Amino acid sequence: MLLDRIDSPADLKKLALSDLPLLAQEIRQFLIEKLSATGGHLAPNLGVVELTLALHYLYDSPRDKFIFDVGHQAYVHKILTGRMGRFDTLRQKNGLCGFVKRAESEHDVWEAGHSSTSLSAAIGMAISRDLKGESNKVVAVIGDGALTGGMALEALNHIGHEKRKLTVVLNDNEMSIAPNVGALHNYLGKVRSDKTYRKAKEEFESLLRKIPAVGGKLAKTAERFKDGLKYLVVPGMLFEEFGLKYFGPVDGHDIDKLLETFRQADKVDGPVLVHVLTVKGKGYSPAEADSHKWHGITPYKIESGQVVKPVGPPMYTEVFGNALIELAEKDERIVAITPAMPGGSGLLGFAKKFPDRMFDVGIAEQHAATMSAALAMEGLKPVFAVYSTFLQRAYDQVVHDICRHNANVIFAIDRAGFVGPDGETHQGVYDIAFLRHIPNIVLMMPKDENELRRMMRTAVDYDDGPIAIRYPRVNGLGVPMDEDPMPIPIGQWETVREGDYAAIIAIGPMVQVAEEAAELLKREGIGIRVVNARFVKPLDEEMLLGLAEERLPLLVLEETAIAGGLGGAVLEFYAQRQIHHMSVSLAGIPDLFIEHASIKEQRVEAGLTAENVVQELRSKVARVRQKAT
Amino acid sequence: MLLDRIDSPADLKKLALSDLPLLAQEIRQFLIEKLSATGGHLAPNLGVVELTLALHYLYDSPRDKFIFDVGHQAYVHKILTGRMGRFDTLRQKNGLCGFVKRAESEHDVWEAGHSSTSLSAAIGMAISRDLKGESNKVVAVIGDGALTGGMALEALNHIGHEKRKLTVVLNDNEMSIAPNVGALHNYLGKVRSDKTYRKAKEEFESLLRKIPAVGGKLAKTAERFKDGLKYLVVPGMLFEEFGLKYFGPVDGHDIDKLLETFRQADKVDGPVLVHVLTVKGKGYSPAEADSHKWHGITPYKIESGQVVKPVGPPMYTEVFGNALIELAEKDERIVAITPAMPGGSGLLGFAKKFPDRMFDVGIAEQHAATMSAALAMEGLKPVFAVYSTFLQRAYDQVVHDICRHNANVIFAIDRAGFVGPDGETHQGVYDIAFLRHIPNIVLMMPKDENELRRMMRTAVDYDDGPIAIRYPRVNGLGVPMDEDPMPIPIGQWETVREGDYAAIIAIGPMVQVAEEAAELLKREGIGIRVVNARFVKPLDEEMLLGLAEERLPLLVLEETAIAGGLGGAVLEFYAQRQIHHMSVSLAGIPDLFIEHASIKEQRVEAGLTAENVVQELRSKVARVRQKAT
Repeated sequence: MLLDRIDSPADLKKLALSDLPLLAQEIRQFLIEKLSATGGHLAPNLGVVELTLALHYLYDSPRDKFIFDVGHQAYVHKILTGRMGRFDTLRQKNGLCGFVKRAESEHDVWEAGHSSTSLSAAIGMAISRDLKGESNKVVAVIGDGALTGGMALEALNHIGHEKRKLTVVLNDNEMSIAPNVGALHNYLGKVRSDKTYRKAKEEFESLLRKIPAVGGKLAKTAERFKDGLKYLVVPGMLFEEFGLKYFGPVDGHDIDKLLETFRQADKVDGPVLVHVLTVKGKGYSPAEADSHKWHGITPYKIESGQVVKPVGPPMYTEVFGNALIELAEKDERIVAITPAMPGGSGLLGFAKKFPDRMFDVGIAEQHAATMSAALAMEGLKPVFAVYSTFLQRAYDQVVHDICRHNANVIFAIDRAGFVGPDGETHQGVYDIAFLRHIPNIVLMMPKDENELRRMMRTAVDYDDGPIAIRYPRVNGLGVPMDEDPMPIPIGQWETVREGDYAAIIAIGPMVQVAEEAAELLKREGIGIRVVNARFVKPLDEEMLLGLAEERLPLLVLEETAIAGGLGGAVLEFYAQRQIHHMSVSLAGIPDLFIEHASIKEQRVEAGLTAENVVQELRSKVARVRQKAT
Repeated sequence: MLLDRIDSPADLKKLALSDLPLLAQEIRQFLIEKLSATGGHLAPNLGVVELTLALHYLYDSPRDKFIFDVGHQAYVHKILTGRMGRFDTLRQKNGLCGFVKRAESEHDVWEAGHSSTSLSAAIGMAISRDLKGESNKVVAVIGDGALTGGMALEALNHIGHEKRKLTVVLNDNEMSIAPNVGALHNYLGKVRSDKTYRKAKEEFESLLRKIPAVGGKLAKTAERFKDGLKYLVVPGMLFEEFGLKYFGPVDGHDIDKLLETFRQADKVDGPVLVHVLTVKGKGYSPAEADSHKWHGITPYKIESGQVVKPVGPPMYTEVFGNALIELAEKDERIVAITPAMPGGSGLLGFAKKFPDRMFDVGIAEQHAATMSAALAMEGLKPVFAVYSTFLQRAYDQVVHDICRHNANVIFAIDRAGFVGPDGETHQGVYDIAFLRHIPNIVLMMPKDENELRRMMRTAVDYDDGPIAIRYPRVNGLGVPMDEDPMPIPIGQWETVREGDYAAIIAIGPMVQVAEEAAELLKREGIGIRVVNARFVKPLDEEMLLGLAEERLPLLVLEETAIAGGLGGAVLEFYAQRQIHHMSVSLAGIPDLFIEHASIKEQRVEAGLTAENVVQELRSKVARVRQKAT
């Protein structure tokens, strides 16, 4: 195997150009085999095998900087930079990260996870290089989906302004995770399809040579036509308008052509865009046939492409999607908005049933949020479905456009809490902290999937401003589902277990953890009350005052950052009411980024297990008893 | 006066078209006079007099929806919709808002303050209209600067995709607040300057008619040239690529031409962009001559254009700007980044002195933040200067690109706390809440302008990750300035006054308020300790533990949202250390949006005066004494 001889980019450079197609084949085989056991981003990586080979063959990493947008398509890069042996641990605790990771290799110079950051990184690195008087190359690889993210367009605008040497590789596979939307996508489609440009140019030039003989008029106005002609012969004129010299489109699976194009592009002393056409899932027919499904995949059987089906009750995502359809059938004000995650957010059924009421706006969280505000202000009921971690992108729009307008936007915040193998860039652990200080918002989290449905009903019935439901990336508990889910009074918590030694105020999946802990302590004769704090905002002030009257020691248990979390809200409430006698302890996520692992392992790392809670409560009870005696 | 007869758009429509130029003149006179007393956004409004007249003359507000991006250029709209009589109260407490305000008029359908939201609002309103089966027009007015904001480009992409009828008016005055930057700006410049397009088109068409007689070849390839020709005759092809039909450029001070163009544009059944060229400050020579200075202006003398000079010590902004120059002279790693606010952020001196180290990226906070991360990772010391309220736009980038990378970015967060007349959209009262839960960041606020300089030195010396300094939009205290400002140990608070009854933990300008309160109570024999909590993160744990040992009642005093603020941080710290005996009270901004007024009035509204603190402490002391007896 050629692959066995590659431990670094230097090894790759020793190969003959003619060896590279075979190496590409071996890499594909390697990825298909390894990922069949671990799962991972198969299709995107199969699409960039030749592209990554060409980059490492031509350029000199890490001196030259490769910036992979999102970073989920860097598996080939990892293979070529000495990490082949770690692929069995992909996306597992202490294993190979699914994204670019600086701690893994000097060849990883920019980490991501969220999309559309690579162009900002590239111009930053180009500026640094120039100020330091260095001469390395800077190459950003960005997908056509990521390019529609507002920050990428901001960066493109700045790149054109700065005019510094750098290369943007537009990895155009006609889709991000879902089919791409937007005018830019249509534009790229036009460029892709028009393969006659080069021929047309030749014919036109030949014509031009003939015409002057006929009449002098064209010569006179020729200058004015220059721009028009340029548009004619340069397919990527939109990028040229942005100030980048355009190259392409080039077949992203033809290494010779890629190398030739990059070499040409390198001669330009300024920003260039190389438009590379790739096929997602290339070389593995199940993935080529359904590259959405195979974007990120769980373990599968190689021969059949059959995916290992998860067992257990439905995921919260699925419950959300189904419940939304039911609600939308009865209430035609309901519309759904997703920033490029129709599948991940469980909206495919809704989209099929209500195509006119479904709006996939592309990777554009900011626009999605503000458009939702406008929809709400015009009397509709927009349901903005978004992952917790991606809602971070729309924080200002939530403050400025939704909450300040007090618009009736419903937030469906998926993947709240730990997310498992996607790791630290995707953890949904800050939304409580970045939402609860915003005036007007109502913020809920259900303890189980039936409560999710009740909260959705609550949200649809609520006409007094923005209201958010956050729910985790896990299976439901398998609880019975109400025929007709009833709304929950705003701000009303629920005592799910009685007890008089102490109370756990828990939220979301932590309610179950609290119950387990309480059950364990019950065996020792310690009665722990468990409260389902299903509203982070507003708090159940009546219940909190009651707990203060009882002088019950409290433990707030949440799978979210402690700083600014529900526990902080409880503490602030008592402080503002001049109640200073309460003993409130906090269990949540400490002040650090939690890396990729299973959700279960991440909970262990953060100390959010029933055992941790038992320990915490035992010492708390001991203190209480000590005080009492 | 014609103007006296206008109390609504209906009145305007009664005028003859030929009356409008005179009316425009009267409106200009009115604005110049009124704003000379109140201050306000003079230049932008002088630029849109004819444009606003044309819109209200042609369309039917509020049935047709006018969306003003940012909303600072809606004074003329306010005059035409019955609010002329309130201009003496502009930007004052309970007075006319400086931005669009729904509570003021049914003609105000979309509020803003931050830029680049209008296109998202427009497509949202167009979708709502279509789903409801209505037929009103939707018109967004957006400046060329605001168009570079990422969310506007996201929206443009979606508008082109949706193909719904709406009008984008591009108000092109060649600048946002500062001179515009970016490739898009250059593009518009090209379009503006090429006034021969129409003529060229005619000549070319005439030529086309002749050529087929010469040879049949052109006819064959004509189809392929179509796009090229379109580029030639349509100046706004970039917008056409985005899927909007382009009209213009049209002189924005010629009402006839504006009306003609809008009428043409209205015939298109889809999205259109009308490119309107306006002159900022039009009709008032001082403002035309220096439209940056006159973008937002304090009271002035009409004849001379002389601005009433503020008295008092330098603003924090100015101290920052000067100190940065001093530091940059000694440390060539320092570079400055601003999202279109070089003047407002006090960076004009720096830009003049270090043009190569100054990066104005346009209205692009997200890109600015992420590019700063890249600059830091390559060994530079980027100082990202940004207003607190606009940093909201970059929250995700701060989490994902700066703090997660632990990049040595220095944040210079200006206008932290109340901002006065700009009101609720601009208050800098959430940055503590949205920053302090992010791992790795250090967050500081100085008690006076000399401490700001010390903090800047601290930040430049700090090489362990991101570090932020927030400072208010007020004058310094006039304290003596250190010759050579020394760094402050990270996380070290300062006791500025001794006392044993209770302690105020104060931050920023609230330290002075705390001192005043303590001074008042001293007269009654009550000794209040005042702590300058200059680090929000990390906290001074040693001091907090010391206070706990002393069992001193605490009042945390901050000009920021209580939820998630410094007070919450103190409470969380004690809770996590299992210290439950402390009496901590909170004084900060309650859970609502505080409207325009003077900063002093806003502090009164939030209860952040020395008198409030005295009252709070008196009752606290009473409780303490009660306990003690």
